[in-house]
Amino acid sequence: MTTVGTKPHHARSLAEVLVEGDHRGHYSHGLNRMDMYVKDIQTGICEKYGEPEVEKESAATALVNGKNLLGPVVGNFCMDLAVKKAREVGIGWVVAHGSNHYGIAGHYAMQALKENMIGMSFTNTSPLVVPTRGKECTLGTNPISVAAPAKHGDSFVLDMATSAVAIGKVELYDRRGDPIPEGWGCDAQGHLTTDPKRVLSGGGLVPIGGSEATGGYKGYGLGMMVEVFCGILAGAQYSKNIRTWKETDRVADLGQCFVAINPENFAPGFSDRMSDLLSIHRGLDPANPDIPVLAAGDPERMHMKKCEEMGGIPYHMNVVNYMNQCAQRIGVSPLLPCDRLISN
Amino acid sequence: MTTVGTKPHHARSLAEVLVEGDHRGHYSHGLNRMDMYVKDIQTGICEKYGEPEVEKESAATALVNGKNLLGPVVGNFCMDLAVKKAREVGIGWVVAHGSNHYGIAGHYAMQALKENMIGMSFTNTSPLVVPTRGKECTLGTNPISVAAPAKHGDSFVLDMATSAVAIGKVELYDRRGDPIPEGWGCDAQGHLTTDPKRVLSGGGLVPIGGSEATGGYKGYGLGMMVEVFCGILAGAQYSKNIRTWKETDRVADLGQCFVAINPENFAPGFSDRMSDLLSIHRGLDPANPDIPVLAAGDPERMHMKKCEEMGGIPYHMNVVNYMNQCAQRIGVSPLLPCDRLISN
Repeated sequence: MTTVGTKPHHARSLAEVLVEGDHRGHYSHGLNRMDMYVKDIQTGICEKYGEPEVEKESAATALVNGKNLLGPVVGNFCMDLAVKKAREVGIGWVVAHGSNHYGIAGHYAMQALKENMIGMSFTNTSPLVVPTRGKECTLGTNPISVAAPAKHGDSFVLDMATSAVAIGKVELYDRRGDPIPEGWGCDAQGHLTTDPKRVLSGGGLVPIGGSEATGGYKGYGLGMMVEVFCGILAGAQYSKNIRTWKETDRVADLGQCFVAINPENFAPGFSDRMSDLLSIHRGLDPANPDIPVLAAGDPERMHMKKCEEMGGIPYHMNVVNYMNQCAQRIGVSPLLPCDRLISN
Repeated sequence: MTTVGTKPHHARSLAEVLVEGDHRGHYSHGLNRMDMYVKDIQTGICEKYGEPEVEKESAATALVNGKNLLGPVVGNFCMDLAVKKAREVGIGWVVAHGSNHYGIAGHYAMQALKENMIGMSFTNTSPLVVPTRGKECTLGTNPISVAAPAKHGDSFVLDMATSAVAIGKVELYDRRGDPIPEGWGCDAQGHLTTDPKRVLSGGGLVPIGGSEATGGYKGYGLGMMVEVFCGILAGAQYSKNIRTWKETDRVADLGQCFVAINPENFAPGFSDRMSDLLSIHRGLDPANPDIPVLAAGDPERMHMKKCEEMGGIPYHMNVVNYMNQCAQRIGVSPLLPCDRLISN
């Protein structure tokens, strides 16, 4: 990133969120998107100079101009501001326009955990989701992330798209030639389909809940809620006006929302209750004795533990090769040779 | 309510939210629950004296003791406070402990619309939802409501349980002897079932998204998020510690959360963009030409329009008879005779 002209501390912000994506097991939001960020800076579609700017501010709120900088630069700026406000008045609600893809939403929500606060983060994204009863994509996968601190470093970390699944998951089934479960996506006529090809060519993802009968209109409503907090509140691009996924013909001007809430402004004993709530769920008798009940954030915790045991983050050889091609293209050193190969 | 000792302005708060539930077509949260509120006051399990009290406060936040008063009394108090704070510092985030059932969550979120603000409301409720992979109910239907103002009195009003459906809907299918769609509920072993009897006897509702494969863990995470904002933040009862649904052996001590956000603290032109976002969706080409694409709040708007055309809210004769029995039991006048009977 610095080779193509990114300021070192901006590059560091991006590096941290991408590696964290991989570390948490969300490989779709990690190094495998490196190329996109490099291209964004190379083509100038994303800005490399300047810093985000507060345009309007109160004790508890702020409107930030992201100046078309890298998403993580805007996200960290906004989340720091939200935490600062929450330290003073119990809550900080900060929205940004002029932002770009910011990696995993959870990265920003989790910043608040370091201060023993609840954190939230939302972003709009390119249209990939078909609203209930429709047949055209008008909403992004618009993620919601909420992180809440429990005792001894434990936490609740929800980080979810408001679509039934991520588009990458449909692409994966397509490459494998497998049908997708009913309730993931629809075809160009707006009908649910189990054929990944139809979802990817003219169709789209469906909101959480799937069809109207199983409550898909709730996921549609949640996706719209995220848009209200992001594009609409921030005065950024929104809904189908956002540029097409993977096309960088014009600046993204994404809208994002960052919130910090200080539990000290509410009832004493927050982290005790939080730990108890997590214990209640983790301790449940599972329907299938081999598959334990988890709390949001536990699958990521298990992945991080695996990384710790292995002494690093395992990458698929395809990603390593892709990174090295990317490195070669811009003339930087490739990754160090793999010191340990793992077979599937 | 006043006959059993409720203060007139508390009774009015309750009346408004129940009638609004019916008016918006959510008959499960309207007059048909009248009896429950009367009993709560008669037995003294719900308090009739006093007013809610602010226990902790900042410019943007408050912790309120609901004093075990009627839910709508606590809800209106908190939402008024949230709006007042949002007028001053752009946001008000108010949580209450010691509350009771407050009717439709949307009632409180919509109070903010009158001030051209975004409103939100959340409540925890008695355990009726089985978390993904579990077989025991540990979460309530924990609703989320978000209302946002558009131009000319138009608005976005999301008001949804974080369960796939409401328990009343399963009861309805059971009475009719019909199977329920897959993805609504599970049996006592935690397996999805289409038999409403199994859901109602030892099983439970499942979170939005249904099974784990179709994203039910997202609905589970959202239900938990609501619990974090309510029972955990407020220091009220939470999760499976909340008393069993329809049992009033002890006080409810529900936790609730009320938020107001002032768009004037963010980018200018909020309501224009909001109207455009609604138009984009309402104007979509539908998958089925006979079933238009709607925005959250539109089905309720259609029901209210129907009421206006009929000159009142239509009630099922069973509800009228039930109300009259209830009136007779406590010695107040019955409803006026029906002046217009509508056949189904």
